[in-house]
Amino acid sequence: MATKKILLSEKDIPLAWYNIVADMENKPLPPLHPATKKPLNPSDLEQIFPKAIIEQEMSAERWIEIPDEVRELYKIWRPTPLVRASGLEKALDTPAHIYFKNEGISPVGSHKLNSAIPQVFYNKQQGITHLTTETGAGQWGTALAFACNLFGITLEVFMVKVSYNQKPYRRVMMQTWNADVIASPSNTTDAGKSILNRDPNNSGSLGIAISEAIEKAVKTPNTKYSLGSVLNHVALHQTVIGLEAEKQLEIAGEFPDIVIGCFGGGSNFSGIGFPFLRHNLVNGKKIRIIAAEPESCPKLTRGKFEYDFGDTVGMTPLLPMYTLGHDFQPADIHAGGLRYHGAGTIVSQLRKDNLIEVEDIPQLETFEAGRLFARTEGTIPAPESAHAIASAIREAKKAKEEGIAKTILFNLSGHGLIDMSAYEQFLGGEMKNYQLTDDEINKTVKSLENLIP
Amino acid sequence: MATKKILLSEKDIPLAWYNIVADMENKPLPPLHPATKKPLNPSDLEQIFPKAIIEQEMSAERWIEIPDEVRELYKIWRPTPLVRASGLEKALDTPAHIYFKNEGISPVGSHKLNSAIPQVFYNKQQGITHLTTETGAGQWGTALAFACNLFGITLEVFMVKVSYNQKPYRRVMMQTWNADVIASPSNTTDAGKSILNRDPNNSGSLGIAISEAIEKAVKTPNTKYSLGSVLNHVALHQTVIGLEAEKQLEIAGEFPDIVIGCFGGGSNFSGIGFPFLRHNLVNGKKIRIIAAEPESCPKLTRGKFEYDFGDTVGMTPLLPMYTLGHDFQPADIHAGGLRYHGAGTIVSQLRKDNLIEVEDIPQLETFEAGRLFARTEGTIPAPESAHAIASAIREAKKAKEEGIAKTILFNLSGHGLIDMSAYEQFLGGEMKNYQLTDDEINKTVKSLENLIP
Repeated sequence: MATKKILLSEKDIPLAWYNIVADMENKPLPPLHPATKKPLNPSDLEQIFPKAIIEQEMSAERWIEIPDEVRELYKIWRPTPLVRASGLEKALDTPAHIYFKNEGISPVGSHKLNSAIPQVFYNKQQGITHLTTETGAGQWGTALAFACNLFGITLEVFMVKVSYNQKPYRRVMMQTWNADVIASPSNTTDAGKSILNRDPNNSGSLGIAISEAIEKAVKTPNTKYSLGSVLNHVALHQTVIGLEAEKQLEIAGEFPDIVIGCFGGGSNFSGIGFPFLRHNLVNGKKIRIIAAEPESCPKLTRGKFEYDFGDTVGMTPLLPMYTLGHDFQPADIHAGGLRYHGAGTIVSQLRKDNLIEVEDIPQLETFEAGRLFARTEGTIPAPESAHAIASAIREAKKAKEEGIAKTILFNLSGHGLIDMSAYEQFLGGEMKNYQLTDDEINKTVKSLENLIP
Repeated sequence: MATKKILLSEKDIPLAWYNIVADMENKPLPPLHPATKKPLNPSDLEQIFPKAIIEQEMSAERWIEIPDEVRELYKIWRPTPLVRASGLEKALDTPAHIYFKNEGISPVGSHKLNSAIPQVFYNKQQGITHLTTETGAGQWGTALAFACNLFGITLEVFMVKVSYNQKPYRRVMMQTWNADVIASPSNTTDAGKSILNRDPNNSGSLGIAISEAIEKAVKTPNTKYSLGSVLNHVALHQTVIGLEAEKQLEIAGEFPDIVIGCFGGGSNFSGIGFPFLRHNLVNGKKIRIIAAEPESCPKLTRGKFEYDFGDTVGMTPLLPMYTLGHDFQPADIHAGGLRYHGAGTIVSQLRKDNLIEVEDIPQLETFEAGRLFARTEGTIPAPESAHAIASAIREAKKAKEEGIAKTILFNLSGHGLIDMSAYEQFLGGEMKNYQLTDDEINKTVKSLENLIP
């Protein structure tokens, strides 16, 4: 019988994260202080992050050791399986070999825990007793809730009010793991109060929730803030995904031609992609690394490379990124984790240097791919992950046309069991695509022109 | 670093299921025909089951080979991990070694797929093209939907109407896997029509859904019916759980003192328990095998050993079982999979012969156990599985009192991500226990007295 899953043992959990900055010819541009517009000093970040995290954020070291305590906790679910998608291959009648890394088996259902655990660890190490964060649909909030609970750190999660009310499952997951979940905008911060004063029925946004979480962290003793995507240290932590997959493909006797991750802020794409991109940068290989983003939020395919804020209201440092502008309001697609206006700085530089490929995918195509995957491989994928599946299916069809047995790897960043209402809408024929006109994109991108003098 | 998970490779998937009937001194009593009240002939079942399943149902062979095609599909998620519950041990400060088998990582989220796949396989082998089944909250329906989809067999699921409307997630899962889900009572069967004629607003019950599914199977060409618990062949298929766990504990250098499964109809309890009970029956070991049932549905602890119907309306064969009477109406607890009036015939005989232990657990204790497990081990358990966890915690506390490093194994039959509304009620302090008086139990048990002449 053919092997379906390639499993590693716990001793194969990587000893170090891979920092791609070390191998980039053009390093990412520095973040700028939002007020002075001068390059940020590490100390500027100390109000919100612990020193070890800031160090990782700024580091150019190639390998950064994973603390034993973190590896110990990774063992709760890692290493994750690498699975041969033989059912999907058969359904597509493709000569391609398709593999996926199943990050959905984590207790929180996604890859987000890979960074939540080290972030909480470094905060704990510095004596921090309380953390704050924001969450939209709740993937990051659940991961941080579980991680905080493991280390005995209390957590406040500002959850966008509309999700808090309409999508209670992930809220209850966070509460089960002991987190304090607050509907944002709230009366617990000045930012929240001022918005509620103007508009008592405001249903919230990720931008507002970030403002509340940062304000709370800055004003509360012994408290820091934590973020689940975009930043360099998050991408760093996620490289355990690709490092494990590399070892697993080797066991399978394969080397990938194509590596695919869905793209929101960059955490899961970086995780699966960077360890393979290293072979291109260092060993002259030519693996195609593809970021698959939603058609409705096409920062990498149609955005502009500029300095921009990470949040909507303009409180964060200015980051050099492919962006649709911080005013960009993404359509209400179901892949909530991909509804973000900008890309992380490392990915943006790689894109600028044509070291990665990008593509945007219509929502209906992603759900068609998700359904086919569920029917052939079992797992119902998260709407985010379905973007990577759709991209893999495109490549597998091309491989069939060309008659070439390419090896395709994608990351299944999470399962979709908390997103069944989205599948319900799709199965009922009520879902639509959101294609943007150039005018719609130019409107918010234009606002960037005067940000930097 | 200590090992957290014991993983097997795909070649370790068992080659045969274990049939405990072969090793029982007192064999289970025969099922009786509901009309003649004489022992059932295998041919009586041919209207609803394929021959290979009937043969397994009646078999006294010790080992029954698992077809290659079934083992191939088991590889989608099997072998499942055996996990050392080190976080839970630490929280309980117990000298006990606690292990759990994680069946929640299956694509459908529970152990039910272990029997769904072979059942569909044997139907397909006999040329059957369509199946029917019933489902309450949906665990069995989702498993059968995925399995049918793998073999290209169409499936109709009669889902209890109140769940169909109030718990849409598992319904949408079934639909994603291509099943036709019908709210029961429906207008598609005589049974359903007659109920709707009398009571158009009837919100359904498992008993009615069974009647509809059987009627549809009997009246439709090339169609059979499929059941996910209670029967001998289901228990047989589930023994892959315990057989794998046996091998994994051996790798860990452990032999269990106590093995625990939650108890509804018997599928998951038999799966974890029977392969270990074999050591008692054959090798003179004294492993304690515990069935943990809800306080509100205490058939094994407080029911009577009698012939009774498997369904509410009295259409099925009479089975010799510990039962609360087929009229028993369990309280509306959240462990929907354990709300069943009777125990399978094998388990009932084992209980009668004092070869297994039984205990009943109040609902609040199960959710307290579930929350502690989630906070220490990550996975939020299904409310059903939380009964096994609660029982394991009781034993771990006893081990602490006695100062003995007992080895405890339990089955985590599924995760609880589709049951977060139950956790919400628990966390909000709105949950209660349902303790039954003797009078309440005697009322429905008494109805059994005149069933057999």
